Amino acid sequence: MFMMQRLYSLAVMLVLVLASPTKAQKGIVVFQSDFGLKDGAVSAMKGVALGVSPTLKLEDLTHEIPAYNIWEAAYRLYQTVPYYPKGTVFVSVCDPGVGTERKSVVMLTKSGHYIVTPDNGTLTLLAEHLGIAEIRQIDEAINRLRNSGASYTFHGRDVYAYTAARLAARTITFQQVGPKLPAQIVKLDYQRAEYSNGVVKGNIPVLDVQYGNVWSNIPRTLIDQLGVKPGASVRVQIFHGDTSLYVKTVRMVNTFGEAPLGDDVAYMNSLLNFSIAVNQGNFSEKYKVFSGPDWRIVVSK
Amino acid sequence: MFMMQRLYSLAVMLVLVLASPTKAQKGIVVFQSDFGLKDGAVSAMKGVALGVSPTLKLEDLTHEIPAYNIWEAAYRLYQTVPYYPKGTVFVSVCDPGVGTERKSVVMLTKSGHYIVTPDNGTLTLLAEHLGIAEIRQIDEAINRLRNSGASYTFHGRDVYAYTAARLAARTITFQQVGPKLPAQIVKLDYQRAEYSNGVVKGNIPVLDVQYGNVWSNIPRTLIDQLGVKPGASVRVQIFHGDTSLYVKTVRMVNTFGEAPLGDDVAYMNSLLNFSIAVNQGNFSEKYKVFSGPDWRIVVSK
Amino acid sequence: MFMMQRLYSLAVMLVLVLASPTKAQKGIVVFQSDFGLKDGAVSAMKGVALGVSPTLKLEDLTHEIPAYNIWEAAYRLYQTVPYYPKGTVFVSVCDPGVGTERKSVVMLTKSGHYIVTPDNGTLTLLAEHLGIAEIRQIDEAINRLRNSGASYTFHGRDVYAYTAARLAARTITFQQVGPKLPAQIVKLDYQRAEYSNGVVKGNIPVLDVQYGNVWSNIPRTLIDQLGVKPGASVRVQIFHGDTSLYVKTVRMVNTFGEAPLGDDVAYMNSLLNFSIAVNQGNFSEKYKVFSGPDWRIVVSK
Repeated sequence: MFMMQRLYSLAVMLVLVLASPTKAQKGIVVFQSDFGLKDGAVSAMKGVALGVSPTLKLEDLTHEIPAYNIWEAAYRLYQTVPYYPKGTVFVSVCDPGVGTERKSVVMLTKSGHYIVTPDNGTLTLLAEHLGIAEIRQIDEAINRLRNSGASYTFHGRDVYAYTAARLAARTITFQQVGPKLPAQIVKLDYQRAEYSNGVVKGNIPVLDVQYGNVWSNIPRTLIDQLGVKPGASVRVQIFHGDTSLYVKTVRMVNTFGEAPLGDDVAYMNSLLNFSIAVNQGNFSEKYKVFSGPDWRIVVSK
Repeated sequence: MFMMQRLYSLAVMLVLVLASPTKAQKGIVVFQSDFGLKDGAVSAMKGVALGVSPTLKLEDLTHEIPAYNIWEAAYRLYQTVPYYPKGTVFVSVCDPGVGTERKSVVMLTKSGHYIVTPDNGTLTLLAEHLGIAEIRQIDEAINRLRNSGASYTFHGRDVYAYTAARLAARTITFQQVGPKLPAQIVKLDYQRAEYSNGVVKGNIPVLDVQYGNVWSNIPRTLIDQLGVKPGASVRVQIFHGDTSLYVKTVRMVNTFGEAPLGDDVAYMNSLLNFSIAVNQGNFSEKYKVFSGPDWRIVVSK
Repeated sequence: MFMMQRLYSLAVMLVLVLASPTKAQKGIVVFQSDFGLKDGAVSAMKGVALGVSPTLKLEDLTHEIPAYNIWEAAYRLYQTVPYYPKGTVFVSVCDPGVGTERKSVVMLTKSGHYIVTPDNGTLTLLAEHLGIAEIRQIDEAINRLRNSGASYTFHGRDVYAYTAARLAARTITFQQVGPKLPAQIVKLDYQRAEYSNGVVKGNIPVLDVQYGNVWSNIPRTLIDQLGVKPGASVRVQIFHGDTSLYVKTVRMVNTFGEAPLGDDVAYMNSLLNFSIAVNQGNFSEKYKVFSGPDWRIVVSK
């Protein structure tokens, strides 16, 4: 009987030991910033997260957002968040207004992803594409690394990474982040994709930087409205503000293998948006075409 | 007796609970690409892998392979794969011919490593150095991220990362990757290391890019055939195609500490291949010597 | 009774199975080097670590230390180590003297962190700021990747990464690293922060590279001795050796949001040290101010 009691205690202990690490282990935190990787800033954020729970899984989106470029931070989230499992917590720190009146928030998307960020426009595209389930303001009195009060400038580490880790490790619930806010965010302005009278207009949110390809925000469905079949050609015009920088008729391909090296080709990128490239070349460099809210692209038959 | 039954059930449950995470946890996926880290492409691949199993361990080889440079992708795998545990699954996406007729394959090496890649030459050096145990073609009808059918261009995420994660997490067996192929791969052409009449010839597969050192494919054993002792000197000549760019007699050292700063020195690198450097300088920049299949190096006494 | 024995065996087995992975899982290894991320060197170090134990958690500090810049390696450790949990094992490989008489050591700080590194100055700032608990020399006869004896140059992988992984996974104790050394390290020379007669002097250890901000080693407490209130102005002078490159009176701010874009501003950085920046600009580029032991900064009212 004594042995049975020992056994029972042992078994119960095992269940307790197992319960929390197994749960916590599924906590994923993904970091994005404009910090670069040359110094210790990103690593310190990860150290803080592992201090919250050493079983968290820490991944990176990118830390090469150009300094203070909120637009690009917004786009990289839009491009990547949907591919992570529900419940993943993202931290995005691109914050030219650190210390000013912008709010520190956590947005829960309708797809079940959390994003911890200053509400400065970074959430523009995710809010449109995934939908806002709920937004809470971080209560920095509670959700702040202990002993960090004297520091005025590193919210990324002391508030955002710390809160994201606690949320991912289930140390706090979403409610414990802080007070609920109205389901609206600070939005950046840009030209939306639209079809009208045989012409599709859109913007160039980012380049495919490694290859110099130009991506638009024009979805396949709008191009389909033009009645263009794969293999056919389209007329593409690109504007920076009011200046036209490129006008050409190019072939729509399914894969780069279909076209000769060096040809300009139009294609649907991995987000199924209209894109244009020099086959195995660098379109952006060749034609001096870049990206941002002030770049427009016009496509017709 | 009732308590004993409860205990037994509890214990069996524990064994079941433990079995799968413990196994899965050992799944390691290592990513290589020419995507760079400025956008969300690499991160999206990791999101897909964690969607397959949140317990996978995800590491990187490099994502700075120059765009479309299959030769360098092949070399980085050769340089790194052997240092990972057996069973590690590598994903290499450097794919100028995406969408053309090249096959998507998984190669199992004789050393027990898996490599998921387009069969476009990327496997050249691994196949030679580690040996091919078995090659299977990815059945993309089955091994493809759900709902990704409409996308034509991101095989890296939707097929390669997805298949690698399922293989590493043991969601599928190697057999379930797809049909077995003959044990041969697409090979890139380059000059092999050879000894003849007191002269050793080889190629410069890559630079030690961070330092600008020049690495060859000439193993220590061939240099030993020259009868050169550490501390002695060798005559080194470097060609780009048929043009001679460098001829000099330099000292063979075991460690850079043996030579004055600024001296040209020959040494065995960490792969035990013949290499040449400017001690604490940049040999490649100084002499305009680069790497690739068309670079040759000739060493004699 | 037979069933109880089975049960007991099962339970004991479970405890044994659980004990080591649970413990090992908390093992964290953080890597720093001047290798860059373009080749496979960093990845090979991680492969070796996972070969020691696939449950280790591997993170990076930075691999973009400028080649052979021991000073910057020392600073990045100082900036980052304290944010990781006790027991974390750091590997730092910036080693111009590889193969010379510098010792390979593991330092245990008073804060409970381990650093595996050549003793070449890399430990200067950590030893001052966190304190030395104990230093041991790596016994390379024991603590070296099997079969790596023939390689002369890659201590980072074969000795440092291997030893760090074994220490983090508790395969070896700290004592088993090798013989205890006196609690002193090789120190780099630089000007310490000091207050005297209404003037504070210090050095510029590093730039905040991503933004071009200039960081000093002058703590808030010395600036407080000047009697400067936030919002007030200070006179800042910067020297390279004996050459004065910058003299200006600038405003002390708590956050960049308080100052107009383009203004020079002084602030306390995340380490609570005196720093100077162009608000949303690049101070270093604008004024040609850089960092290192030979840069001095002088602050007065």
